[in-house]
Amino acid sequence: MPEKSSGKPRFVLTTRRIEALADGIFAIAMTLLVLTLTLPDMVQTKLSLSQLLAEQWPKFFNYALSFVLLAIFWMVHHQQFHVIRRTNRIHVWINIGILMFVALMPFSTDVVGDYSHETLAELVFSANLMILGLLFLLNWWYACRKHRLVDPDLDRETIVGGIRRSCVTPGVAAVSMILSFFVPGWGLWVYMLIPFIHMLPWFRHND
Amino acid sequence: MPEKSSGKPRFVLTTRRIEALADGIFAIAMTLLVLTLTLPDMVQTKLSLSQLLAEQWPKFFNYALSFVLLAIFWMVHHQQFHVIRRTNRIHVWINIGILMFVALMPFSTDVVGDYSHETLAELVFSANLMILGLLFLLNWWYACRKHRLVDPDLDRETIVGGIRRSCVTPGVAAVSMILSFFVPGWGLWVYMLIPFIHMLPWFRHND
Amino acid sequence: MPEKSSGKPRFVLTTRRIEALADGIFAIAMTLLVLTLTLPDMVQTKLSLSQLLAEQWPKFFNYALSFVLLAIFWMVHHQQFHVIRRTNRIHVWINIGILMFVALMPFSTDVVGDYSHETLAELVFSANLMILGLLFLLNWWYACRKHRLVDPDLDRETIVGGIRRSCVTPGVAAVSMILSFFVPGWGLWVYMLIPFIHMLPWFRHND
Amino acid sequence: MPEKSSGKPRFVLTTRRIEALADGIFAIAMTLLVLTLTLPDMVQTKLSLSQLLAEQWPKFFNYALSFVLLAIFWMVHHQQFHVIRRTNRIHVWINIGILMFVALMPFSTDVVGDYSHETLAELVFSANLMILGLLFLLNWWYACRKHRLVDPDLDRETIVGGIRRSCVTPGVAAVSMILSFFVPGWGLWVYMLIPFIHMLPWFRHND
Repeated sequence: MPEKSSGKPRFVLTTRRIEALADGIFAIAMTLLVLTLTLPDMVQTKLSLSQLLAEQWPKFFNYALSFVLLAIFWMVHHQQFHVIRRTNRIHVWINIGILMFVALMPFSTDVVGDYSHETLAELVFSANLMILGLLFLLNWWYACRKHRLVDPDLDRETIVGGIRRSCVTPGVAAVSMILSFFVPGWGLWVYMLIPFIHMLPWFRHND
Repeated sequence: MPEKSSGKPRFVLTTRRIEALADGIFAIAMTLLVLTLTLPDMVQTKLSLSQLLAEQWPKFFNYALSFVLLAIFWMVHHQQFHVIRRTNRIHVWINIGILMFVALMPFSTDVVGDYSHETLAELVFSANLMILGLLFLLNWWYACRKHRLVDPDLDRETIVGGIRRSCVTPGVAAVSMILSFFVPGWGLWVYMLIPFIHMLPWFRHND
Repeated sequence: MPEKSSGKPRFVLTTRRIEALADGIFAIAMTLLVLTLTLPDMVQTKLSLSQLLAEQWPKFFNYALSFVLLAIFWMVHHQQFHVIRRTNRIHVWINIGILMFVALMPFSTDVVGDYSHETLAELVFSANLMILGLLFLLNWWYACRKHRLVDPDLDRETIVGGIRRSCVTPGVAAVSMILSFFVPGWGLWVYMLIPFIHMLPWFRHND
Repeated sequence: MPEKSSGKPRFVLTTRRIEALADGIFAIAMTLLVLTLTLPDMVQTKLSLSQLLAEQWPKFFNYALSFVLLAIFWMVHHQQFHVIRRTNRIHVWINIGILMFVALMPFSTDVVGDYSHETLAELVFSANLMILGLLFLLNWWYACRKHRLVDPDLDRETIVGGIRRSCVTPGVAAVSMILSFFVPGWGLWVYMLIPFIHMLPWFRHND
């Protein structure tokens, strides 16, 4: 552990530590999504298993959707920390905010699963994603502003490309929120565009 | 962290990162299986603890079975990533699919525990395992095809042996599905063959 | 793994190992906080989703508060282990005590969320935080006493500064406990001062 | 990752990988213990919070007991893997068995908390600990037998000391089981001796 050294009291959190906590919280939040899939008691509901599973169909869709969206955020987190080399107090707090809304995803997924076709439930889900997206944008903007936490020779193209990509999720969340008012129950489908938008030339990375 | 470097925007996920997320999700999914073991309220059911535990017997069997099967998949995951040296966008998505069905195992185990002796419950469980097995097969085939993500000198024997072993679980899952139609409640026992099939000369590794 | 060596039986836990277990338990406890946010069944309560969410408002506040407090403790843990270089039996047990009260936080948060505006619930929550804070103080004092587990040349300023900062949370918890008797339901707000107290010149690190 | 190499298909799990999975499962199992502490609904039970907390007293004791016992097993696991240098198929399966009974601890703790003062509940708890202790003994015996997985020059004293220490928990569990028949509700207190037995000269490590 080369970063261990005695000396003046300093603020010593390293990006490696933030990455370790983030990996843990992402993995746990993604796995806790499975708790949103619960079968009601058959005896009580007098439904057969096939009816119960059929009724739960929106929950399976939401499980897969939230899992994929968290996986995308996890990838963006690593893309960002690939070039972020230092951290400071404000940057750590931005990241704690990110992790707070990552850990909230199982709740938002549960709300939208239990109250599907309700506008308010979809707004809760979209608000969670929009805040998460905006915090990622803030994380990137704060780190790159005047090359604060990145290498001094990091090129403009990388910085601008990162900002552009960070706007995809908040943008889609805004569209989804509007759709939730007019066609409740369908607003979530628009999130399935995100992986495809990331493949458009304007947004994609070089492989 | 030697892989940190500024430069052109590139797709920078490394196999090390996928392994870290996978280790986390495997560990959590395996531990969450314990939540499928819940004692109903004694007061309400008017059963003694010994009767409750005896009634839960199939759940203990399912807990152990799912735990062992996830442990086997975890070992296969490491065997595969032992020779996979690079990753790309498609490969990452295959792995996110794998992790999604790993995280789903506590749910499938719960279904088959709550509705034991129902054909449909066993089909849900077997379908989860079959999809997981096929995704592992795809993961290996995609990485080895034209030595895409492995060393150029990786020998044919390793590649073919990996494909052969990856067919064991989907094959057993297919047998189990057929058995579930004819002898519901017994289809799961066939999974206990998997560790032994892996010990047959045709499938086993050199130690 | 350079620390692997055969030889006389010795007590071989390293600080690296404690940090790994601590990172895991912190990440899981922070994510499990989300389980304190559960929506009661709408059919049963005959309340609309908006009413349910509005009623849950104190729970969201508690979720954010506990998440931020655990994040602060996680940072302090890393600050302390940045200069702690060795461990011993007593030190390991202090750390197990710390982790036990970290893992208890989702319970305390649940109590204070289910019984908001009850003095006793707030005392449970504050007691958890006070014990946690005192254990962190003990951890630091024990390690630095006669430079037991730190570098021999670690300066007095770092040691005293660490003690001073470790008194912030127990102090705030004591104030909160007193407030809970007089203005139940408001005692928790005082915890929001903690991040700001840490920014005061007397308590803050150099950046 | 120096252990990555193409070549003949071999069984490639390393002790490092087992340690990583074990750290994850220990951390999660220890944190999930908190889910055994649930407050029944106050409205339904017509009890005040102070009565509810008082009634839950045995659960708090069980939480602390299981947390400490898992922490001790975690330390033993690291002590053992400190000298174990290789692994093989049988050794991996012993370790999967260990992790299966680690992950079961939240269930056993729940049983003994919900049915305190019932002999059977205490037997379930003690059986879990006894099996866990015996698997740790097997793990050590298998690794050290003919210096199978340890350094050839590992001294006899370390090996015999490890066996001796591994007998403490199964022995205490046996005593607890006997006590459970005669003084149900008190059998668990005997586990509190474990940390002190480990401090006896005959069992302790050199510091």
